[in-house]
Amino acid sequence: SDVKKIAVIAGDGIGPEVVGEALKVLKKTEELFGYQFETEHGLFGGIAIDEKGTPLPQETLELCKRADAVLLGAVGGPKWDNNSKELRPETGLLGIRKELGLFSNIRPATVFDCLKEASTLKPEVLEGTDLIVVRELTGGIYFGEKFRREGVHGEEAVDTCVYNVQEIERIVRQAFEIAMTRGKRLASVDKANVLETSRLWREVVNRIAPEYPEVELEHVLVDNCAMQLLRRPSSFDVIVTENMFGDILSDEAAMLTGSIGMLSSASLGEGSFGLYEPVHGSAPDIAGQGISNPIATILSVALMFRLTFGYHEAAAAIEAAVKEVLDAGHRTGDIAVDKSKAIGTTEMGDLIVAAI
Amino acid sequence: SDVKKIAVIAGDGIGPEVVGEALKVLKKTEELFGYQFETEHGLFGGIAIDEKGTPLPQETLELCKRADAVLLGAVGGPKWDNNSKELRPETGLLGIRKELGLFSNIRPATVFDCLKEASTLKPEVLEGTDLIVVRELTGGIYFGEKFRREGVHGEEAVDTCVYNVQEIERIVRQAFEIAMTRGKRLASVDKANVLETSRLWREVVNRIAPEYPEVELEHVLVDNCAMQLLRRPSSFDVIVTENMFGDILSDEAAMLTGSIGMLSSASLGEGSFGLYEPVHGSAPDIAGQGISNPIATILSVALMFRLTFGYHEAAAAIEAAVKEVLDAGHRTGDIAVDKSKAIGTTEMGDLIVAAI
Ligand SMILES: CC(C)[C@H](C(=O)O)[C@@H](O)C(=O)O
Ligand SMILES: CC(C)[C@H](C(=O)O)[C@@H](O)C(=O)O
Repeated sequence: SDVKKIAVIAGDGIGPEVVGEALKVLKKTEELFGYQFETEHGLFGGIAIDEKGTPLPQETLELCKRADAVLLGAVGGPKWDNNSKELRPETGLLGIRKELGLFSNIRPATVFDCLKEASTLKPEVLEGTDLIVVRELTGGIYFGEKFRREGVHGEEAVDTCVYNVQEIERIVRQAFEIAMTRGKRLASVDKANVLETSRLWREVVNRIAPEYPEVELEHVLVDNCAMQLLRRPSSFDVIVTENMFGDILSDEAAMLTGSIGMLSSASLGEGSFGLYEPVHGSAPDIAGQGISNPIATILSVALMFRLTFGYHEAAAAIEAAVKEVLDAGHRTGDIAVDKSKAIGTTEMGDLIVAAI
Repeated sequence: SDVKKIAVIAGDGIGPEVVGEALKVLKKTEELFGYQFETEHGLFGGIAIDEKGTPLPQETLELCKRADAVLLGAVGGPKWDNNSKELRPETGLLGIRKELGLFSNIRPATVFDCLKEASTLKPEVLEGTDLIVVRELTGGIYFGEKFRREGVHGEEAVDTCVYNVQEIERIVRQAFEIAMTRGKRLASVDKANVLETSRLWREVVNRIAPEYPEVELEHVLVDNCAMQLLRRPSSFDVIVTENMFGDILSDEAAMLTGSIGMLSSASLGEGSFGLYEPVHGSAPDIAGQGISNPIATILSVALMFRLTFGYHEAAAAIEAAVKEVLDAGHRTGDIAVDKSKAIGTTEMGDLIVAAI
């Protein structure tokens, strides 16, 4: 059948609020485009720790595995920050990535015209910036062996960064494919002058590159990339890099757009399966007040439509609706210049639903 | 005697030109302040590969060990980029750090008034930015075991990140000491939600913190720090972090000041020994044309005076001279708005020497 199963994980903080608006958008597209979605909710993160004693309950994992895609709100909060490792929300996040095989994190850094002024970068530097960071998500130092041991100079801690050829190949190939659909420029970021994993990374990139003769490839050292993102953000198209570097660079890239509260992300596995979530976090300070901005989560639905379901028309309709509502001057508190005119989470959601 | 021994390593690219001007400054301070410097030159980096078959010849290492401080120009260039690891300039750089025990890299990110416009950040965001990144320089993933092996999914590469308590203690204590001489705020950057080395790092920082009750301490995750440097650069005073994160963040911080061509750096060991060098690289594209900017290297001499020799008066005189020359409107090509009025390397050096 053409019923698409979506696992919905509202999570912590503002997660449930913003996901609520995204679900309205899903419903509207069912009516307009005749899609059928079957949504099933699961516990994850802090709330799962509280209710089930683990950030990633087995039943949530099963739910995700049965689904075609996962919609995630946000996880974490100060309440769980001092828990032991097994009882922290981010342990659930790392677990779900690994268990679902989500090896690729796609982070578009888009500049919203109406938010250009919110960037700390000069508008003329930002002009034309539209890049995607493709971050490897299930390898590297995040998942290598970690331990403590007694050394000659007291206790020591060890983390291991491991990459194999296959892990590098699949993410690099995906980045080349994405570049082909866009500006045909790929920057591969590594630290090949120091790290063995980076040298292997660069070898694999150079071996795959001839399969994509149209794509202009550059190798950029990670320290240099952190600088070039500031100096010439608009010169980047697709950036591909390993897990730890990607964590740092995708956040830097997001922040320089000034639009961090509006950015969506996808974590993809083999095939078309993907987990979609806003880039912003759980914002516990404003949770429950009905003032959070649901746009990043709504745009995550659009990304899901494009990348997992191939519903390009509906994706475009959602994106156009968001633009229309913003162009009409509606703002939630986080993006409002005049805070007194800010609208709430549900109002923003309703306006976008109406505009689709 | 009070003769100070300085090992001079001109290196590659523009290294020899900029070091030449710094030596004139040294000489002028001998005349004015009665200091005595004994300089001895050594080969290092690309030129050492060409002439001695290794980036760090034993005699250069001996020379540095005999000296009270090292003045370094810059190393590297495309000529040696494709050499095998042992024959690359950066291998010499890593070697000299380890051999001389330079565990601490001090990178001030200062905004020069006359260069404020050169930053891609909005002037109002940059306002008041004056921070120092203290980077651990002889541990972590840079120096841990690295190797290749056959895995189940083909060849794999491994890098190991190791830190022991003692390594963390000495750099963290130094950062607290530096914070005490400045704004008394310290941001310790780690990835404690993922890495075991970061968890040990944070434990050590928290253990040392009570020794410095006046210093306001915050723990910042590395991805968040990459964002906060863009959002609120002026809120940082001293940032302390491990080797790899420091490599990335110190370059990001330097770039956002817009003054990267003017920044000096110190790499310190136990006691007062230190290696001083400009942050900019060897700039092979403009080498030999006499147009490079010697200011960062001259300011590295001032930093050497402060941190290794305790010659504070002379350091202040050098810094004031640089300011005077810039305020009078003199510019090398890299920092000139009107390139046609740019002056050359030796002219800039002479003007600063005259102004001391
Ligand atoms: C919470 C943390 C483990 C996570 C990461 O580092 O991957 C987060 O920063 C992210 O980027 O999704
Ligand atoms: C050249 C390279 C090995 C070096 C490093 O990563 O430490 C450089 O980037 C630096 O920061 O001095």
